[in-house]
Amino acid sequence: MDDNRQPTAAESLCFEAGIKFGTLYHQFAGTPISTASAPSLARAMEDAIENQPHCQSVTVDVRTDELETALAAGPADYVEVTGRFLEVEIIVADGDLEVVTRMEMDDGYPLMNVESVRK
Amino acid sequence: MDDNRQPTAAESLCFEAGIKFGTLYHQFAGTPISTASAPSLARAMEDAIENQPHCQSVTVDVRTDELETALAAGPADYVEVTGRFLEVEIIVADGDLEVVTRMEMDDGYPLMNVESVRK
Amino acid sequence: MDDNRQPTAAESLCFEAGIKFGTLYHQFAGTPISTASAPSLARAMEDAIENQPHCQSVTVDVRTDELETALAAGPADYVEVTGRFLEVEIIVADGDLEVVTRMEMDDGYPLMNVESVRK
Amino acid sequence: MDDNRQPTAAESLCFEAGIKFGTLYHQFAGTPISTASAPSLARAMEDAIENQPHCQSVTVDVRTDELETALAAGPADYVEVTGRFLEVEIIVADGDLEVVTRMEMDDGYPLMNVESVRK
Repeated sequence: MDDNRQPTAAESLCFEAGIKFGTLYHQFAGTPISTASAPSLARAMEDAIENQPHCQSVTVDVRTDELETALAAGPADYVEVTGRFLEVEIIVADGDLEVVTRMEMDDGYPLMNVESVRK
Repeated sequence: MDDNRQPTAAESLCFEAGIKFGTLYHQFAGTPISTASAPSLARAMEDAIENQPHCQSVTVDVRTDELETALAAGPADYVEVTGRFLEVEIIVADGDLEVVTRMEMDDGYPLMNVESVRK
Repeated sequence: MDDNRQPTAAESLCFEAGIKFGTLYHQFAGTPISTASAPSLARAMEDAIENQPHCQSVTVDVRTDELETALAAGPADYVEVTGRFLEVEIIVADGDLEVVTRMEMDDGYPLMNVESVRK
Repeated sequence: MDDNRQPTAAESLCFEAGIKFGTLYHQFAGTPISTASAPSLARAMEDAIENQPHCQSVTVDVRTDELETALAAGPADYVEVTGRFLEVEIIVADGDLEVVTRMEMDDGYPLMNVESVRK
């Protein structure tokens, strides 16, 4: 390696944002969900992750159409949470730095991305 | 083995109740929790588990004193969910049968028990 | 309710078996899995659940065909663990009582059942 | 905000590393663990997370002394996985970029950090 350096403040904050996304996804993946229980789960996901350091806001939207499609196709009146049912925005901040991150479905895969780094 | 038989209806329903307890505990163990976020998590746990088959009611009480003690002792303003912070009652039913189950701390261990089988 | 009684030893043991199944399923649901990583995950699931009280043996078989089908259909080289990829047998024991339980796919749903109660 | 820009390649890769850490921690937090079952769980954690995109290597060391202390203090012969029992290194790579990240206990808190960004 030609270059081996400490992370910048923005790189560290992007790392923090990633932690929040991995936490949110893998803490709650597999949770039984129905159209009736979706709102309370979305609130709990937001409130739980907002506890983590540097976490400014978490917004979880349940993709109701996708959930209803899965419920109609499945054998039970609930399904398990997976990325297909969620759209998530997480904003982390440290001092005057802000990192905006998002999870959206992209060709069948729940893609998590850094959208912008703001100062 | 002298005797090898199929389960009774009550035994199968107790098995169902156990599934709900294992699900509730291990789906949510590790979730970041604070006094502010505890209520929405308790609601989400109740609503999520009530989706499961034969589940009549789930009641999750957060042991606020215990949570405040842990928060005061720890280095962060949240802790991770574990049995120490919860009291849970789950009632499952099938036809005229009802099984009442409970989780309470017992000498430092979150003991899950069948309290009664009712008909 | 005409009748309200304490559980029998067999009913309590069926409850214990249910706890193990709920634990196994919801602790590990959502874990990234590929054909290469499946064997170590199956071993870890068995070893982890065997720690729990009264747990005599846990056998996790990964349904390799089903996993390969999902991998071929999906956009990534791993998928998330769900019941579709697993067959599980759990035996719990207490004194001379033994309860044999199983999870198998049944019409698209990972059905958990008490197979037999033995003495 | 004066400045609002897209992330650099290194920032995106730090975000990816964070995702792996959040996944590892919150997928496996709460798993029953003993000295006997620790090695298979550590392997499964490594293999599972290495499935994720850009993940070059995951090394999980169980802090055996800490685990033995907790087992001796507790009422059961297993405890639940939490950061106190783990030291983890995750290296992610993209093209000629490499990010080295680590989780270590720091004053009672499982601190996750970017150690270096290399090219």
